[in-house]
Amino acid sequence: MNKHEVIDAIEAADQAINARDLITLMDFYEEDATLVIEPGRYAHGKDAIMKAFEAIFDFFNQSLRISQSDFQVVEGGGVALVICKLKLSADGLGETKVSIERKPTYIFRKSVDGKWRCLIDNSYGVELVA
Amino acid sequence: MNKHEVIDAIEAADQAINARDLITLMDFYEEDATLVIEPGRYAHGKDAIMKAFEAIFDFFNQSLRISQSDFQVVEGGGVALVICKLKLSADGLGETKVSIERKPTYIFRKSVDGKWRCLIDNSYGVELVA
Repeated sequence: MNKHEVIDAIEAADQAINARDLITLMDFYEEDATLVIEPGRYAHGKDAIMKAFEAIFDFFNQSLRISQSDFQVVEGGGVALVICKLKLSADGLGETKVSIERKPTYIFRKSVDGKWRCLIDNSYGVELVA
Repeated sequence: MNKHEVIDAIEAADQAINARDLITLMDFYEEDATLVIEPGRYAHGKDAIMKAFEAIFDFFNQSLRISQSDFQVVEGGGVALVICKLKLSADGLGETKVSIERKPTYIFRKSVDGKWRCLIDNSYGVELVA
């Protein structure tokens, strides 16, 4: 099976996160997208999402690294649901080494310019439900 | 917090499933929606989704019952991601009593007629990824 274009978009966004490149990262979000910061806490719209990423990068002392794998893509009704495995690590917090694994759910739509952009970025997946 | 309209739609669709009312049920899907029948197996479009439900109803000898709770709704980019708890039971298979719990992920969009309709129905949630 050919690799789905939306996976290329996610991997490019991950590279932008790891490089702290907010300009590149923000182009992967629709204007009215939503980021789940943590369960019950959301950033709505690109400005709020950019501020949230700045705060996340600061929280991890610019040491956040993410990588994702095992992508499953389901398309329907003009959107794509992506489920995958996420590894999140950070070593810039002194003695505390952060290493977290999650199964995110993302919703993407192909824009008129041909680029897949994120509508809902929920790295917590079904963890939103206790 | 007010109950989100999309939860009303899901609960009405569940009632239609429990009543084997395919006409009512199908009106909750967009024309080009996708149903995850099981991981790796999908029904695309309303005709295929209706046939899949007929086969599911037959498989459980018309005894399938579902109920859902703990709805979390995230809106972004014009769509709604719904994550919840699903209980599925069936007692029409002789000695075998079926009782399954899952955490689904659904994607809905509000149609121009004001009704929320499903774009992607993935009752397996992140179980799509092994």
